[in-house]
Amino acid sequence: MTDYTLLPIGHVESPLTNLADAPRQGDEGAPNAWLVIFPAYREALKDLTVGEDILLITWFDRALRDVLAVHPRSDPSRPVTGVFSTRSPDRPNPLGLHRVTILAIDNLRLHVNNLEALDGTPLIDIKPVLGDLSER
Amino acid sequence: MTDYTLLPIGHVESPLTNLADAPRQGDEGAPNAWLVIFPAYREALKDLTVGEDILLITWFDRALRDVLAVHPRSDPSRPVTGVFSTRSPDRPNPLGLHRVTILAIDNLRLHVNNLEALDGTPLIDIKPVLGDLSER
Repeated sequence: MTDYTLLPIGHVESPLTNLADAPRQGDEGAPNAWLVIFPAYREALKDLTVGEDILLITWFDRALRDVLAVHPRSDPSRPVTGVFSTRSPDRPNPLGLHRVTILAIDNLRLHVNNLEALDGTPLIDIKPVLGDLSER
Repeated sequence: MTDYTLLPIGHVESPLTNLADAPRQGDEGAPNAWLVIFPAYREALKDLTVGEDILLITWFDRALRDVLAVHPRSDPSRPVTGVFSTRSPDRPNPLGLHRVTILAIDNLRLHVNNLEALDGTPLIDIKPVLGDLSER
């Protein structure tokens, strides 16, 4: 029996506290933020380096899971679109995907740029950006 | 109280049944596969189109969740590396991230290319690849 329960590995510390203020994507004026990682995951973190681009998977804990279609970018002039064709946080599994650059590392805290996730958002995973085949 | 339980939206149908045969990444010789989506999510799927590139999030249901560091690509000559710097399926939250192209759509089934996930792997989310700001 598969267990589908996520274990947050940490959370986001950000000046963004209000959903209405959050940019739609990280490259649309999102602020820098800190990722605070739980001590249990120290070993998984040890090879991340300043300057590196990484992918974050977050859990949009304030999203609605029973929404299957939305107006993209909450723009009522755009036709209602299935959520699998949008980046809406409202979706069956409200996972966020973010590409950021590591600006600084302080023990279990990572400073990153351009993160549109709200303060307190649970962090689920960190993955490297895949380079060319020759670099793997 | 946040609920961190994933609800699979479907599963992968693939000729890959054996972990030892699976390529390390989709662009390293992975086969085409079908995504079989559950009827409850029909509306979320309705705007996907043939030829489109999408991102899949899967749940590596045969992975180990207590592994924090691995030899990258299972190559013992490479130093043990924290899993957040690798794409190892063994990690605290065994989410897979895959970029594929939709080759065909047949009702609730999507045919996609280059998918390294094993047959039966639960599918968790589908997201569009983000284009330039002007295209959003």
